[in-house]
Amino acid sequence: MSDGSNARLDGRRPDALRPIQFARNFTRYAEGSVLVSFGETRVLCNASVEERVPPFMRGEGRGWVTAEYAMLPRATHSRSPREATKGKIGGRTHEIQRLIGRSLRAVVDLEALGERTIQIDCDVLQADGGTRTASITGAYVALVDAVNGLVAKGLLSASPIRESVAAVSVGIVDGRPLLDLNYDEDFRAAVDMNFVITGSGLFVEVQGTAEEAPFSLAELDALRDLALSGCGELARLQQAALEG
Amino acid sequence: MSDGSNARLDGRRPDALRPIQFARNFTRYAEGSVLVSFGETRVLCNASVEERVPPFMRGEGRGWVTAEYAMLPRATHSRSPREATKGKIGGRTHEIQRLIGRSLRAVVDLEALGERTIQIDCDVLQADGGTRTASITGAYVALVDAVNGLVAKGLLSASPIRESVAAVSVGIVDGRPLLDLNYDEDFRAAVDMNFVITGSGLFVEVQGTAEEAPFSLAELDALRDLALSGCGELARLQQAALEG
Amino acid sequence: MSDGSNARLDGRRPDALRPIQFARNFTRYAEGSVLVSFGETRVLCNASVEERVPPFMRGEGRGWVTAEYAMLPRATHSRSPREATKGKIGGRTHEIQRLIGRSLRAVVDLEALGERTIQIDCDVLQADGGTRTASITGAYVALVDAVNGLVAKGLLSASPIRESVAAVSVGIVDGRPLLDLNYDEDFRAAVDMNFVITGSGLFVEVQGTAEEAPFSLAELDALRDLALSGCGELARLQQAALEG
Amino acid sequence: MSDGSNARLDGRRPDALRPIQFARNFTRYAEGSVLVSFGETRVLCNASVEERVPPFMRGEGRGWVTAEYAMLPRATHSRSPREATKGKIGGRTHEIQRLIGRSLRAVVDLEALGERTIQIDCDVLQADGGTRTASITGAYVALVDAVNGLVAKGLLSASPIRESVAAVSVGIVDGRPLLDLNYDEDFRAAVDMNFVITGSGLFVEVQGTAEEAPFSLAELDALRDLALSGCGELARLQQAALEG
Amino acid sequence: MSDGSNARLDGRRPDALRPIQFARNFTRYAEGSVLVSFGETRVLCNASVEERVPPFMRGEGRGWVTAEYAMLPRATHSRSPREATKGKIGGRTHEIQRLIGRSLRAVVDLEALGERTIQIDCDVLQADGGTRTASITGAYVALVDAVNGLVAKGLLSASPIRESVAAVSVGIVDGRPLLDLNYDEDFRAAVDMNFVITGSGLFVEVQGTAEEAPFSLAELDALRDLALSGCGELARLQQAALEG
Amino acid sequence: MSDGSNARLDGRRPDALRPIQFARNFTRYAEGSVLVSFGETRVLCNASVEERVPPFMRGEGRGWVTAEYAMLPRATHSRSPREATKGKIGGRTHEIQRLIGRSLRAVVDLEALGERTIQIDCDVLQADGGTRTASITGAYVALVDAVNGLVAKGLLSASPIRESVAAVSVGIVDGRPLLDLNYDEDFRAAVDMNFVITGSGLFVEVQGTAEEAPFSLAELDALRDLALSGCGELARLQQAALEG
Repeated sequence: MSDGSNARLDGRRPDALRPIQFARNFTRYAEGSVLVSFGETRVLCNASVEERVPPFMRGEGRGWVTAEYAMLPRATHSRSPREATKGKIGGRTHEIQRLIGRSLRAVVDLEALGERTIQIDCDVLQADGGTRTASITGAYVALVDAVNGLVAKGLLSASPIRESVAAVSVGIVDGRPLLDLNYDEDFRAAVDMNFVITGSGLFVEVQGTAEEAPFSLAELDALRDLALSGCGELARLQQAALEG
Repeated sequence: MSDGSNARLDGRRPDALRPIQFARNFTRYAEGSVLVSFGETRVLCNASVEERVPPFMRGEGRGWVTAEYAMLPRATHSRSPREATKGKIGGRTHEIQRLIGRSLRAVVDLEALGERTIQIDCDVLQADGGTRTASITGAYVALVDAVNGLVAKGLLSASPIRESVAAVSVGIVDGRPLLDLNYDEDFRAAVDMNFVITGSGLFVEVQGTAEEAPFSLAELDALRDLALSGCGELARLQQAALEG
Repeated sequence: MSDGSNARLDGRRPDALRPIQFARNFTRYAEGSVLVSFGETRVLCNASVEERVPPFMRGEGRGWVTAEYAMLPRATHSRSPREATKGKIGGRTHEIQRLIGRSLRAVVDLEALGERTIQIDCDVLQADGGTRTASITGAYVALVDAVNGLVAKGLLSASPIRESVAAVSVGIVDGRPLLDLNYDEDFRAAVDMNFVITGSGLFVEVQGTAEEAPFSLAELDALRDLALSGCGELARLQQAALEG
Repeated sequence: MSDGSNARLDGRRPDALRPIQFARNFTRYAEGSVLVSFGETRVLCNASVEERVPPFMRGEGRGWVTAEYAMLPRATHSRSPREATKGKIGGRTHEIQRLIGRSLRAVVDLEALGERTIQIDCDVLQADGGTRTASITGAYVALVDAVNGLVAKGLLSASPIRESVAAVSVGIVDGRPLLDLNYDEDFRAAVDMNFVITGSGLFVEVQGTAEEAPFSLAELDALRDLALSGCGELARLQQAALEG
Repeated sequence: MSDGSNARLDGRRPDALRPIQFARNFTRYAEGSVLVSFGETRVLCNASVEERVPPFMRGEGRGWVTAEYAMLPRATHSRSPREATKGKIGGRTHEIQRLIGRSLRAVVDLEALGERTIQIDCDVLQADGGTRTASITGAYVALVDAVNGLVAKGLLSASPIRESVAAVSVGIVDGRPLLDLNYDEDFRAAVDMNFVITGSGLFVEVQGTAEEAPFSLAELDALRDLALSGCGELARLQQAALEG
Repeated sequence: MSDGSNARLDGRRPDALRPIQFARNFTRYAEGSVLVSFGETRVLCNASVEERVPPFMRGEGRGWVTAEYAMLPRATHSRSPREATKGKIGGRTHEIQRLIGRSLRAVVDLEALGERTIQIDCDVLQADGGTRTASITGAYVALVDAVNGLVAKGLLSASPIRESVAAVSVGIVDGRPLLDLNYDEDFRAAVDMNFVITGSGLFVEVQGTAEEAPFSLAELDALRDLALSGCGELARLQQAALEG
């Protein structure tokens, strides 16, 4: 898959991630604050520790990790109205913030977290495809920073995070399986999948959609393999950022 | 997987569907009206033909297929508040109705449908797990009835439906991959996946979630195979119902 | 009023009800579940027992009976938008659900019910006129089933229901007073009244509207008499269904 | 019913109205503006003429009369939250404003009104029972003033109002039928009815509710007679105010 | 500034208030109820005493004074939709009711008030400019009446009101600074300012807006002086009304 | 005011601004995009050009400039709920976004702008006091960039911006007038004022609030002078940034 004839518009090979960056401590008040970049996609991931849990969980001794997601109105090529102005959160936003929350909870021992909530806010400053996968991948780093702060303060004796988690999009564009689609590729994709995979290579979420062209078993397998490889690389980059 | 020691609580083999039924013409006004049963799960799927499309599609000569989904308050063991009373549609409902719409559009030639909308309403009368997969599977039958009505009236010269589509849930319960989970199994499942697959065995949607226990590649493959087999059986039952 | 020349479009005499049916235990989870039919009008009436009362009643030792009402989008000839999608409940729905609640409370000894709520859900599957009167009449049967369940479990020593209650519409169509209007008759009615009357012939609710043609005292009296007779017949049919 | 021993707390006979007043031209901008008093109940009824009709009526050559109703927060003994602050209109408000609109339309020839709307706003400044009946009765006077203004300007050649309309409450309190209940009487009433009756004695609306004690045919007839007499007196007072 | 050539359309001198009136006890239930008139602008200011404070203040021993503001739909030349019907409160309303609340709190010793709330409702019956300044000026009188009632009942040993407060608008119209603008003047004003000033001449709020023509330091000073003089006169009129 | 004993907690003199920065082109899609910093307060100001105006202005040949404002949930010391999640925009947000829009419109010739809208989005990434004044000051720079883009594309022959505009807060803290308050100073301020002033020293907006301690004429004048000086310095910094 690596000779020049296969190159994508931005020069990447089919199995290459975009340039990935994690800017930790991007804002000063959040317990974890990471500006993650997947190429031109930039998401501010803030983790807030709150010493309480939602009403339905009180008194059970377990913690909670949840997420909210939003795009700034001009994160995109043309401006989109604010959901606050419209007075309600759209279906797409609901889906994404539920996905981020589930993905993070999959690697946290909620009993060990204790009766507190870690609230993740993912705000997209600039969107060029893959905002939900960048959100999950950056939110993990912010979550680790927030949890390490609890350990440093003695509020936790050890980190309740079992392993890392990252996410990536894959898709079939012009008949070819590609890793980490940017907006132009995503727009032209016949199939679009998002995988959330742990550092040890286990699956947390698999979401594939083929609105116009159903896909074959062979294509499903090829996309799955690309995602496994991409998330492996993201796990290494997360680790490096946290050690940086 | 078929000896007695493997039997599920309701006596099914791991790879068996619940009893499936399609009651066509369940109500009298909708152009297609099917009460679908997956065991004790019962969903009323009404297809309404409207001779217009949403504003963003006007004048393009293409049609639209969309869906709404709701549960009656007492479809479940304990009563849930109505979304109309709460004044907004929840995230889960949003996800499901978007999924149903995408799944049906994947098998319809929207240009051939012409500038009209087929609106699918899936209302769950009784819920025992798998309401979204039953909804898709029943909605396909209601959609065919509605489209055939357009053909019979001469409004369409041929059906714009390319092939059939059905959906099924699979999951890992007590370490074992199972097909078509009922509520009790779904509640205990470590992994829960929904597949939407066409009559010819192509994938339309793949959604898997492992909130508490990430799953391996081998488990993913086992679930995928169960779903392919289950959707094949559902396609045969849809066909039989439409010929009945 | 009974010779052939008086026959209505569906062949009924002016003082005849449509065919009335009560299908008890229509769904499996609700403590009372009745699908009531007034001709082609079909309403699913579910009664849910909740062991609490609204906040404003707590600690007073009295129970509560309340109702919600909705139409499935395609219960009618053309599809109506869902109130959940619109984000609010309309004035007509508010009126009807308040009416159902008041009608049932009129025959229940709330002190004897104890500090619990019986929540009635009336969901119209198919609408051909008289959905509110069918709802009340069917809800009474569901309420009895739910209350009898409480007695059977020993949670109540005796039923707190004092007597039965039923409802019927009457109207003046083409100058003639008619009982139990279907949709076509209702559409053409100059006057439309709904009566809620107990098994012993006492009035619980009287609602008459003459938007375009005010009516005389003689007409009011004729409608009242038709309603008394119709509700008497409904009381007998309710009793038969509960003994069935 | 007229000897001293029957006197009500405020000294009225059972069949007596409270002191009724109509202050016309109460505000300066509305085309009709009447502050109506039924004893201590005071409602400002403004009629606004708008040279358009709602979208669903455009191009049909007919006019429309509609109403909105609200209570100032401190119209009552204790303060009630504003519906604007709560973000939605309650069921009771919906019922009342629909009732006012229907009542006025019943005496207006909408074709003769031409394609314009008369919007009635009934705002309760002080509430001591009977706010809906005072609203209807005062709104009629404001409506006449607004319509006469259209005639005076030559926009209408003759008034499209066919006859007058008024409303009154009646009820059974301590076993006795009473006319025009104030708040204390309404609070203790076993049965509460509202009648809307034209100047010629025809019925426009009949609404009776017996939440706790169903009522007999004899009681219904007694209440009806009180209402007919009371509305007759109100019609005379409306006429006098309009001539004043 | 007082010769005839300077006269405004309504004959006032540039530094003259409109006729000001305070009708106390305008409604019977509110603890303070004042209908204030600034010329043709009329606002009903009701003060309600509630023996509780908002949740965020409980247990702190301090009281609260807050306000709500609304216009009746036909207070203005053409009818405006109700905010309750629109389902939300607009930005202008929010601004005004926050301003009224802050202005009154500035002269009240909240500790001395004790843990209770005084809720002010300002409802504009007729609007001819200056509704927010009339609201503040009238609300102060209603507040005094409500507080004096608490003293009279022995619930407070002394009034917690430190001094009086009043408000007035000023503006530059046709190049000339004017006091207390009516609607026509306000509409033509290049600069519009509102001042809230205590009886002893201290500033509580200063709000000036020049959407189309920024103003100079000299103009700012001229407007400030007009407002100081106007509020001084209003303080005298408030005092006279309270002694009346 | 400049000797050491007067130094503020962060070492500033009473009449000193915090370090001010304008990062232009902070995001890539908006026609103007500026990250403005007033010390630790950071606001992303995006200007979007839309070739249409609001419905009420169509066909008048004039343009429009409007603004929206929001804080990211964790811009502050403790997390605040999103307004999108709450379903409505609060009073404070309404006030601020109206203020920003008015301030910018005051320096733009809307006729010369032509029938298009410039939509400003101010999103606070980090809040340490003065977010509304930073928003206005940064938004001006983004507005110039957006307008210059229109000129560069030949859509405008000359800039319709008449002069610059900036804003600053001033307040009385511990009895001393201070310029450009940070959060800690703002929290302790007895008086808080915001001034919006043009590059030529004219006033656009003056807003002063003294909730707990009314202020004297002398204090008002001192604050006004500080603001004039501070906005003069901001105008120079804006100019330098635009030339940078």
